[in-house]
Amino acid sequence: MSATRYTYLGPEGTFTEAALRKLPESATRELIPMVSVPAALDAVRAGEAEAALVPIENSVEGGITTTLDELISGEPLQIYREVLLEISFALLVRPGTTLADIKTVTAHPAAQPQVRNWLAAHLPEAVWESSASNADGARLVQEGRFDAAFAGEFAAATYGLEPLVTDIHDAENAQTRFVLAGRPARPAAPTGADKTSVVIWLGEDHPGALLELLQEFAVRGVNLMLIQSRPTGAGIGNYCFAVDAEGHIDDRRVGEALMGLKRICPQVRFLGSYPRAGVSRADVRPLRQGTSDAEFVAASDWLRQCRDGRP
Amino acid sequence: MSATRYTYLGPEGTFTEAALRKLPESATRELIPMVSVPAALDAVRAGEAEAALVPIENSVEGGITTTLDELISGEPLQIYREVLLEISFALLVRPGTTLADIKTVTAHPAAQPQVRNWLAAHLPEAVWESSASNADGARLVQEGRFDAAFAGEFAAATYGLEPLVTDIHDAENAQTRFVLAGRPARPAAPTGADKTSVVIWLGEDHPGALLELLQEFAVRGVNLMLIQSRPTGAGIGNYCFAVDAEGHIDDRRVGEALMGLKRICPQVRFLGSYPRAGVSRADVRPLRQGTSDAEFVAASDWLRQCRDGRP
Amino acid sequence: MSATRYTYLGPEGTFTEAALRKLPESATRELIPMVSVPAALDAVRAGEAEAALVPIENSVEGGITTTLDELISGEPLQIYREVLLEISFALLVRPGTTLADIKTVTAHPAAQPQVRNWLAAHLPEAVWESSASNADGARLVQEGRFDAAFAGEFAAATYGLEPLVTDIHDAENAQTRFVLAGRPARPAAPTGADKTSVVIWLGEDHPGALLELLQEFAVRGVNLMLIQSRPTGAGIGNYCFAVDAEGHIDDRRVGEALMGLKRICPQVRFLGSYPRAGVSRADVRPLRQGTSDAEFVAASDWLRQCRDGRP
Amino acid sequence: MSATRYTYLGPEGTFTEAALRKLPESATRELIPMVSVPAALDAVRAGEAEAALVPIENSVEGGITTTLDELISGEPLQIYREVLLEISFALLVRPGTTLADIKTVTAHPAAQPQVRNWLAAHLPEAVWESSASNADGARLVQEGRFDAAFAGEFAAATYGLEPLVTDIHDAENAQTRFVLAGRPARPAAPTGADKTSVVIWLGEDHPGALLELLQEFAVRGVNLMLIQSRPTGAGIGNYCFAVDAEGHIDDRRVGEALMGLKRICPQVRFLGSYPRAGVSRADVRPLRQGTSDAEFVAASDWLRQCRDGRP
Repeated sequence: MSATRYTYLGPEGTFTEAALRKLPESATRELIPMVSVPAALDAVRAGEAEAALVPIENSVEGGITTTLDELISGEPLQIYREVLLEISFALLVRPGTTLADIKTVTAHPAAQPQVRNWLAAHLPEAVWESSASNADGARLVQEGRFDAAFAGEFAAATYGLEPLVTDIHDAENAQTRFVLAGRPARPAAPTGADKTSVVIWLGEDHPGALLELLQEFAVRGVNLMLIQSRPTGAGIGNYCFAVDAEGHIDDRRVGEALMGLKRICPQVRFLGSYPRAGVSRADVRPLRQGTSDAEFVAASDWLRQCRDGRP
Repeated sequence: MSATRYTYLGPEGTFTEAALRKLPESATRELIPMVSVPAALDAVRAGEAEAALVPIENSVEGGITTTLDELISGEPLQIYREVLLEISFALLVRPGTTLADIKTVTAHPAAQPQVRNWLAAHLPEAVWESSASNADGARLVQEGRFDAAFAGEFAAATYGLEPLVTDIHDAENAQTRFVLAGRPARPAAPTGADKTSVVIWLGEDHPGALLELLQEFAVRGVNLMLIQSRPTGAGIGNYCFAVDAEGHIDDRRVGEALMGLKRICPQVRFLGSYPRAGVSRADVRPLRQGTSDAEFVAASDWLRQCRDGRP
Repeated sequence: MSATRYTYLGPEGTFTEAALRKLPESATRELIPMVSVPAALDAVRAGEAEAALVPIENSVEGGITTTLDELISGEPLQIYREVLLEISFALLVRPGTTLADIKTVTAHPAAQPQVRNWLAAHLPEAVWESSASNADGARLVQEGRFDAAFAGEFAAATYGLEPLVTDIHDAENAQTRFVLAGRPARPAAPTGADKTSVVIWLGEDHPGALLELLQEFAVRGVNLMLIQSRPTGAGIGNYCFAVDAEGHIDDRRVGEALMGLKRICPQVRFLGSYPRAGVSRADVRPLRQGTSDAEFVAASDWLRQCRDGRP
Repeated sequence: MSATRYTYLGPEGTFTEAALRKLPESATRELIPMVSVPAALDAVRAGEAEAALVPIENSVEGGITTTLDELISGEPLQIYREVLLEISFALLVRPGTTLADIKTVTAHPAAQPQVRNWLAAHLPEAVWESSASNADGARLVQEGRFDAAFAGEFAAATYGLEPLVTDIHDAENAQTRFVLAGRPARPAAPTGADKTSVVIWLGEDHPGALLELLQEFAVRGVNLMLIQSRPTGAGIGNYCFAVDAEGHIDDRRVGEALMGLKRICPQVRFLGSYPRAGVSRADVRPLRQGTSDAEFVAASDWLRQCRDGRP
């Protein structure tokens, strides 16, 4: 029964699995590793899974374009949750291996920028070879192909390895953001600390279009958290923008901004409104004066009175 | 019965009366001249007249502040019509008077900038003395106090005078705009060539407030036709703004802009939506893409679908 | 010798004279009352006076359009100083007159809104007749034509009258702002609490022009203190704007904003940079980050290095 | 002698080499293939090469983040030229191979989105395996490891292969943009069809910062062609922006915009002004009124006159 399955970017032992296990409901779902982000999402589109957890942004490498492009095109999907995970690596080895024994190391290429300095300092002679995923690298160590793999510490047990060194991360605050995507449905109710994701296509080439897009948000006091350009495929110089904004589509200010975008842009794709990971209502920046739901309702009442001749 | 009376800025024979007679319904109303703009408007507030016609703007002298200030403060009134009148003067004299006979001339001080050059060229020796209104000046000529008066040619008959010279106007395109103000009621339906007047108070002294105000209009594609600052009476540096915008309060784009103002400004007074004088639907600048009622409705439908999980 | 004469809006005993005497240098100038604002300014244009003090703005009535229009058109003049004067009236009578004796009162029409409530409360039966100036009203009381005149208390001595009641002002904080205008010359050096006045004509009718004008100031962090529309004389709907901005033309941010206006507007008239009345350097709002002269110089140095290939 | 060498993203036979050969001066340079973008650029930084040609943007996949991040951080480099190359693939095989013989295909992973549909239609059974570069794939076909490789047709000769099918490209208009980067020096003189690249860091988290950044360009009439966010490495939610703008740093409007950015942003890195590939002066959008160098000079003259008292 599909409603009880979540897919994720596998294999087992990746950071994505670790992120998925941070969601309480994962305990009651069947968790299915998939070979790629498109595969994880297509299973949801096909109705074979309820939702998929995929990485979308990395504080070192930036937006994960495969995921963005999958959400931008194809059958619409909607984001329901986000998960933030601190990324730090362990050096996994077969039991008994010491640092001095390590001649070859492996990991997914994305790990390289986060372990490069550590490697240069501690294993300057080791030869690096990339693997298809960090978990796959661990498996290859298990099989004896490499001496050590960089991976999440949680992957050690799965592959019968030992963490020789832990907490390796060249950049402080290295984080990856994951999203849980499902088929479109009514978003969860606002929590007061929400985020709304949309993709916006700009119209025929006119230079001020991006400025106008931002003003639709600004004039309603909706703060932007992320704006990421992606090619539309129509040639160099043609972009769409993936935007994360503070607030929930049910908030009046957000709704009015989205309608403004819908009117001036040839296409807008709603990607979901969902709670912000790691942010509670108390942490949210106060609303700009005049942008609360109560103020929207009061202004709407006033307008109706003016229209009716009772100002 | 008050509903059949219109007051106007008198006395008889003023340009205001001429403007009022351009309104077809004036033929079926009792037209009551009043001694001042406040008196004309207070008769409406008191229920003694249905509406009052008063001058509000002059292409030579600018906004007529007495009228603006009356509409800005006091019991609310609403504008239902505007009238544009080309202003050109006749030199009115007692029958038989020739240019050579004229030693003294009179008119309301507001007439002076529009006849100054003519006077200098044709009657350089004549002594000017101001009168309380142009019509009053004509009366004083009738009584023999002055030799000639500048007034509308239509005033000649009322005071038994003759127009010795007509079509005197130093400035080309000299026009005065008049408004017909009544007690608040539902505005007339949109004609497609409408104007909306509001008064907007800015909030606590912050430098960008005027820019924000204009952006509320601009982001919804609502063009401004006039913006006039008036002191609030709270000391030098405190202003409110009388604004005329294209469109009707029933237009979605205008309604949304007004709600935006209502939310960010401490006070907004709606002064009416009414047909633009001398402008037909065909003359109106085309709407900016994305600002028609149909586009607002479509965006609103789309938003509802997104909120309901049916994007 | 003209350089030692200041003209002002007379006659003697007006608020303008009182304002002029607040300027220390007035003690060493010959002060010449003139019959009108144009007359006072034309004497400067003609080289018959060094400068003229004229009222330009009133916290109750707003901009004084005669003065604005004189500065906007004709031979250019430049503002070198401003003076703020609290406006409060005395009721001036011939010695021995009591309140009960007063049947007729007079003053300039501009005084009326500031004494109307007081009159209604204390002399409800008195008949009001306007005079050409407050000082003129005082003279007419001296001559016995009226029983009492509203004027500045300082006018009593000039006309042999007594202040029967003082400190009459319906509105709190009633102030008038005066400017000292001379022929164009290098402005006084910046004091750190300066104001710059310009007149700006908008180009061919395009709706966003006013917004663009304001953005030229905003993007350089220059705050506006006053914006006043005036008709250009080219017919209803054609305006220019008199603008007062914080800062001095020698400030880089102000200079760059003015150049921006000069480029996008068909005409800009510089009306002067001068110290703000009643405001010291310590009272001035702090500059927005990035808009100080030092930051302009640093950015300019950086640009030169980039252009020279030494970033 | 280093000044005669250009490095590029190798190996021989890549699209980068094809792009490099479009530059006329490549005929007189020693062209050195490097194993990676960082290696190509570091050779320039180390003075071992005069310049490096590297891909920066792809119409299908978007910005090439490795290149962007290399230009954003590390020792400054500057862009002197850009090259646009239409991307279309040939299927390279050993002489004699037919479609029916092909069981395995290879290419760089970036090729996959551009040949996926073709593969599904013509070789649905073939097994795909990624190679380190398209040229490397061709080499592996030469060595017999795979049956066919997708690569540029020009790579066939280098590896003794034949193009079995040519002009394969799933997306129309697939292009890659390359830049030629060298050590900082004075940019080439403006051609009238130029582009300026900068990286801009936003200041402390404030929501309107991106809007302000865009307004610095907009108010000077400088059009943006590309804006690409990149993580700063300081954690999720911290971005810098790589921006391509129309115009040359020697253009006054561009210079003023850059200075504005320099003042309000904590860091700005100038990446170069260079001729736009494939665009001649006649193709360039006309400048907005008021933004030409001549208009900047005229406004500057006017400002100087105002400051000197000769308006």
